[in-house]
Amino acid sequence: MRKDDVYFFENPAYVLAWSSCAGKKEGEGPLGSRFDVVAADDRFGEQTWEQAEKAMVQTSLAGAMAKAGVQPGEVGCILGGDLLNQCVSTSYAVRELHTRFYGLYGACSTMAESLILGSVLISAGLEDKTLCTASSHFCSAERQYRYPLQYGGQRAPTAQWTATASGSVMLTAAPQKIAVTRAMAGRIYDPGVTDAANMGAAMAQSAYETILSYFKTTGEQPSDYDMIVTGDLGAIGRDIVVELAKAGGLDLDGKYTDCGIMLFDREKQDVHSGGSGCGCSAAVLCGYILPEMEKGSLKRVLFCGTGALLSPLTTSQGESIPGICHLVCLEVM
Amino acid sequence: MRKDDVYFFENPAYVLAWSSCAGKKEGEGPLGSRFDVVAADDRFGEQTWEQAEKAMVQTSLAGAMAKAGVQPGEVGCILGGDLLNQCVSTSYAVRELHTRFYGLYGACSTMAESLILGSVLISAGLEDKTLCTASSHFCSAERQYRYPLQYGGQRAPTAQWTATASGSVMLTAAPQKIAVTRAMAGRIYDPGVTDAANMGAAMAQSAYETILSYFKTTGEQPSDYDMIVTGDLGAIGRDIVVELAKAGGLDLDGKYTDCGIMLFDREKQDVHSGGSGCGCSAAVLCGYILPEMEKGSLKRVLFCGTGALLSPLTTSQGESIPGICHLVCLEVM
Repeated sequence: MRKDDVYFFENPAYVLAWSSCAGKKEGEGPLGSRFDVVAADDRFGEQTWEQAEKAMVQTSLAGAMAKAGVQPGEVGCILGGDLLNQCVSTSYAVRELHTRFYGLYGACSTMAESLILGSVLISAGLEDKTLCTASSHFCSAERQYRYPLQYGGQRAPTAQWTATASGSVMLTAAPQKIAVTRAMAGRIYDPGVTDAANMGAAMAQSAYETILSYFKTTGEQPSDYDMIVTGDLGAIGRDIVVELAKAGGLDLDGKYTDCGIMLFDREKQDVHSGGSGCGCSAAVLCGYILPEMEKGSLKRVLFCGTGALLSPLTTSQGESIPGICHLVCLEVM
Repeated sequence: MRKDDVYFFENPAYVLAWSSCAGKKEGEGPLGSRFDVVAADDRFGEQTWEQAEKAMVQTSLAGAMAKAGVQPGEVGCILGGDLLNQCVSTSYAVRELHTRFYGLYGACSTMAESLILGSVLISAGLEDKTLCTASSHFCSAERQYRYPLQYGGQRAPTAQWTATASGSVMLTAAPQKIAVTRAMAGRIYDPGVTDAANMGAAMAQSAYETILSYFKTTGEQPSDYDMIVTGDLGAIGRDIVVELAKAGGLDLDGKYTDCGIMLFDREKQDVHSGGSGCGCSAAVLCGYILPEMEKGSLKRVLFCGTGALLSPLTTSQGESIPGICHLVCLEVM
């Protein structure tokens, strides 16, 4: 059932397995030791950045299947996407697996969007072994969104660093330790930011509104959760969420952080405001959040995927940047 | 419930209203008089092709809401996408409506993909008034995928013409005349076509496999339907489906056609193999198929959205073109 914007799953989807795959720089960050695969270099043995990203998606999908003990032929469907034009790293990675496939585009909110729709399909009894996936690659994203790497363009202090990472989660109908008990699709908020080098500021309001609306509907408090995590606002966007919450009377109770802040060491890794890209929240989910829930150190987590729904073309045409935030409630049962 | 790849909806989603919007050339085609809005020129009063496409999406969304007598604030969620990089015509069109939003990327299969996921959300009791939408614009697509229009590039005889069109369908849980009773998410098939000017050939196998699989699972025959329509393979892709069906022992019984063939007069309109683009099947659905079902002249229709999951970059890197076909069964109840 749904109340306001929140889906409450009577038959929740359960998390059967997960896997993450990250680039060299991400491997050198604070969560580096937690990823299943860290690439020796960001080419993943491929000839192009786009093929490298495809290989990363294949690696995390294969990792989740292997951990679940599920063969490709037993996978029901895959939901996922990425940042590349026409979402090609996901489509090409999925091609060989030959499952039912739903292509999604939610920018950096894609991991949360895929978990919501995957959970809906399982809760409705229509799918079982379902893979939710998202990825990004610094080099393919820089070339597409900004400048070729060889150009050596200067990055703005407000900019985020697109993560070279992929995460895949296998959901199932059969009870497991961790469940997706609730979810909430986001509404678009656009506070009028036109600077594509400051996406955290563009997305912060959507994150705040989604989180606020969730607590209003459920009657719960941030203190009822072990972690409320956005992905990915970076330090600037995170600070705006904290300020908005303070002004709006929402006490985040020290429970709030952001995947873009967790992925990198901002002091040492020159990532400016923090990490971004579909792969950032996907890899933090699969490298840190779900493993900590499995261990029992986190029991209730709100995973809030934030996306900036712009394109280089809309920016060059002077448009502001619409933000969206999809929320997933993960609980140890 | 699901059997093989087919979802059978115990609580089907019903079609409450629909609306279509088309460009000048589409308005001069065989279905021209059937669209709710035909533009005087393809700019829709906007400064750029991309803003024009956004205006078309807004027009068809508003049209569907008006016909349904539903205010924007009463819309539960919107699912949709388009062909532009980062699906911006849909995101920006939806921004002002401020509903829950799921961004999808299924290339030209997007209308069918959105109908499937919209029906799942309604069938599961999680959403009610749900808008499913898809669009494309010849000029924004040409610039992005091929050449600027001013370049005057020659089109290959096998090429299709991206439709300037948008279609939106409002689904609801409350019984209406037309229902989405079954659906089937596609699997990717890639027969190895590397020519991006021959996408009908690249997608034909996925269409055939989806249709064949549907009939195998349901035990029905094409003769049980009034229309089996792919969107959009054009004449070349359509002919391949007919050949594959013949070779595979599937008698299409004269019931099979393609939205890309229906939209244009191939003799007079210089569209080569036929129409394409997310907006083609969306507009044919909303301009012809649903109105004919409302009138009762079509009672059972298989709407099979076909998508080519390539990008200009994958083509330039020598990749072949993966195809997918999502199927929706529409029935007059």
